[in-house]
Amino acid sequence: MSGDRLSTAEVRELDAKHVLHSWSAQNAITPVPIASASGASFTDADGNTWLDFASQLVNMNIGHQHPKLVQAIKDQADELCYIAPAFANDKRSELARLIADRAPGALNTVFFTNGGAEANENAIRMARVHTGRHKILSMYRSYHGATSTAITATGDPRRWPSDGAATGVVHFMGPYAYRSAFGSTDQEEESRRALDHLRQTVQLEGPGTIAGILLETIVGTNGVLIPPAGYLDGVRQLCDDYGIAMIADEVMVGFGRTGEWFAIGGFDVEPDLITFAKGVNSGYVPLGGVILSDRIARTFDDTPYPGGLTYSGHPLACAAGAASIKIFEEEHILENVRDLGERVLRPRLEKMAVDHPSIGEVRGKGLFFALELVRNRDTREPLVPFNASGADAEPMARLMTACKERGVWPFSHFNRLQIAPPLVISEDDLVRGLDAIDEALSVADGYYAESPA
Amino acid sequence: MSGDRLSTAEVRELDAKHVLHSWSAQNAITPVPIASASGASFTDADGNTWLDFASQLVNMNIGHQHPKLVQAIKDQADELCYIAPAFANDKRSELARLIADRAPGALNTVFFTNGGAEANENAIRMARVHTGRHKILSMYRSYHGATSTAITATGDPRRWPSDGAATGVVHFMGPYAYRSAFGSTDQEEESRRALDHLRQTVQLEGPGTIAGILLETIVGTNGVLIPPAGYLDGVRQLCDDYGIAMIADEVMVGFGRTGEWFAIGGFDVEPDLITFAKGVNSGYVPLGGVILSDRIARTFDDTPYPGGLTYSGHPLACAAGAASIKIFEEEHILENVRDLGERVLRPRLEKMAVDHPSIGEVRGKGLFFALELVRNRDTREPLVPFNASGADAEPMARLMTACKERGVWPFSHFNRLQIAPPLVISEDDLVRGLDAIDEALSVADGYYAESPA
Ligand SMILES: Cc1ncc(COP(=O)(O)O)c(C=O)c1O
Ligand SMILES: Cc1ncc(COP(=O)(O)O)c(C=O)c1O
Repeated sequence: MSGDRLSTAEVRELDAKHVLHSWSAQNAITPVPIASASGASFTDADGNTWLDFASQLVNMNIGHQHPKLVQAIKDQADELCYIAPAFANDKRSELARLIADRAPGALNTVFFTNGGAEANENAIRMARVHTGRHKILSMYRSYHGATSTAITATGDPRRWPSDGAATGVVHFMGPYAYRSAFGSTDQEEESRRALDHLRQTVQLEGPGTIAGILLETIVGTNGVLIPPAGYLDGVRQLCDDYGIAMIADEVMVGFGRTGEWFAIGGFDVEPDLITFAKGVNSGYVPLGGVILSDRIARTFDDTPYPGGLTYSGHPLACAAGAASIKIFEEEHILENVRDLGERVLRPRLEKMAVDHPSIGEVRGKGLFFALELVRNRDTREPLVPFNASGADAEPMARLMTACKERGVWPFSHFNRLQIAPPLVISEDDLVRGLDAIDEALSVADGYYAESPA
Repeated sequence: MSGDRLSTAEVRELDAKHVLHSWSAQNAITPVPIASASGASFTDADGNTWLDFASQLVNMNIGHQHPKLVQAIKDQADELCYIAPAFANDKRSELARLIADRAPGALNTVFFTNGGAEANENAIRMARVHTGRHKILSMYRSYHGATSTAITATGDPRRWPSDGAATGVVHFMGPYAYRSAFGSTDQEEESRRALDHLRQTVQLEGPGTIAGILLETIVGTNGVLIPPAGYLDGVRQLCDDYGIAMIADEVMVGFGRTGEWFAIGGFDVEPDLITFAKGVNSGYVPLGGVILSDRIARTFDDTPYPGGLTYSGHPLACAAGAASIKIFEEEHILENVRDLGERVLRPRLEKMAVDHPSIGEVRGKGLFFALELVRNRDTREPLVPFNASGADAEPMARLMTACKERGVWPFSHFNRLQIAPPLVISEDDLVRGLDAIDEALSVADGYYAESPA
């Protein structure tokens, strides 16, 4: 069946005719046909190669086409592609143990889904059944997926067209010192005020009505927002005070992105539920899931868990997950993330911030950073307005083009250039990519306007 | 990484300790560890083999471990496991065309998801954006998946614990002549009355508020309910009259189950949206999707489609889909379904209905049938009550055990034994399985009580 390979022209033509692409007006896009990918880069049908500084959708943690992971998938394909969730399966058992062993403290049970949205849907369901309450508090500036409750919990504008589809979600403001909603002037004040805001929200919504507080441990797409010291402990305390389940969405930051198995491990806080996807097997086979605390898991010992999906605990996906975790350890990938992140990436970005006036702030951890781009450092006016499109978004579009022309495919959202390469990237490739971004940033600097003297 | 294979005891132990299984009280289940599977059967770790008369969750259409499909997955794993939805990819383009070519009339655009629930979530979103309306009408006695809107649209009791999670769904009664909600005495009357009920529902809900009518073309888990002549045409007409999108859920019946690519092809009706999953690649790699009519697809030419997921159009999953469709054609699988269904399965079940008083009705098409089991044919009292559990459900549990002891793993729901083997099953295996069910049915007959004279 490999004789009838499509030409590039056919790939493009059939794509335009028959494929609907996510989050896009179809007339506004020209999808690039990708021919191959390897490690930290990918190549289109015309032979152009880019360093993948987005890890696709921040999921390609282990790098493209890792030979050992490909082999593990092929071995499992030969053995058993699928068996229903009601059976037991060796790869599913093994991956569940590997995940439980790496999750914080008493989080030991895994419910497998296909991706991140379903993971959040199920975590929310678990919190609701466990507490007998309905409301979920989630942060503005967040993304949790696109099924009804996941998109309603989302705090970015992708939610707007779906507003009203699901019930029981209330949004609160998270800490974001650079653009504080609380008038704070430093991280410590921001942490305190954001917690006070959350406590007031809980009280005014009615603690006895709230099943869970859902947040990204480190906000991903919406800005690589690292919670300031004390914030996550404060959320944990609030959840304890009122019997609310703390749900950490680690779909984007789990499995190594910040140099930890789970980002929340770096804060020494134990949530009640963790959701994951992406990095668990780098998306080689669709997989996501929820890790439950023992306390929540016990709820479903005698009460049926009211959720499921045909592909829960999919053997091929689980085999890829188990192999991936072992490869991470064999190849010391977490160590690579911590080393390159602190020794190479952070200092270089801080140096760029000295050279480029358009960089308002550098934030990040491990191999996950954001450059917050501004037109002026005093006013902090963003390079493009919030949720800009068309001509308003042009400065960012021009910056992205400048990066791509220099061989780097970065990740951008609103006025931020975000950096999230595969975790296996070499120091040389990382530096090469940063050199390119350094050059490209002159585009952003071109929009900079000094404050009047 | 194959040196550290788990023992069966470990598989069981780790499963009990670390895996949460769908739709179950964890203390009430003892998942059987499956060691291997091939064609129409699967084998546990103790060497017990069963004919898979459930095709797992009615998804294993092509049979377990089909060598050509396994090879196609291995080839694609070597080539490219994943690329983001924003790019173009040969396997995604190819599968989209293969699906569009097999879908009815003007349904030519595919949006890919991971599974059936997400397919329905997205179809509902498309209907809402396209019409600018919010309400969705869906049938009682249906299953549409377990994310918030999909489970709310579901018409079986799995919905109950999630009630209130999503908005805008109204349920209506579908045609079900054997247990008519309209007092009908034959199929023709049932069709007419069910349509009249639906038209009244549309009018009373307000036609201008209704985005879509969602139904399983043939209701699957909830009874293999084949719509009577005229019903689907009537729904189509109603949708045309009021500008409502007709959404056919073909997650369970699509891709050959009834001997057609899409079951709705057998009724000569063209819906506006079709949802699929399962049979598209038999679940070897998680995949689902929505097929859009040209009219609805055009809505997203200039308006961004407000939905997406990390694994939309997953290359490994799409490669498995494209290969599967080609194998279906090379091996004449649809022909096998039609032939075995009409020549072997239906006559044999009708013969059983003569021999076993507990069979109240035989319904089905292709390789998808239900035996409606009763305690009395006059009263039609079901063998077990609706949504029975525990002691109330024992007659069905005993029947299932009797089947399994005889080497057949059937699919049961409430008072029905449903038959859905892989579509590649041989005549010998089909007959062998039916012989076993024939014997096992004496358990059901044991509960039969004649009407008083
Ligand atoms: C933090 C977070 N949660 C959830 C999701 C949704 O995951 P999926 O696209 O697999 O549904 C994403 C995807 O980007 C994410 O970044
Ligand atoms: C008709 C129908 N729709 C939707 C679904 C949900 O599919 P999934 O389990 O892949 O989410 C199912 C699953 O059984 C189904 O039978």
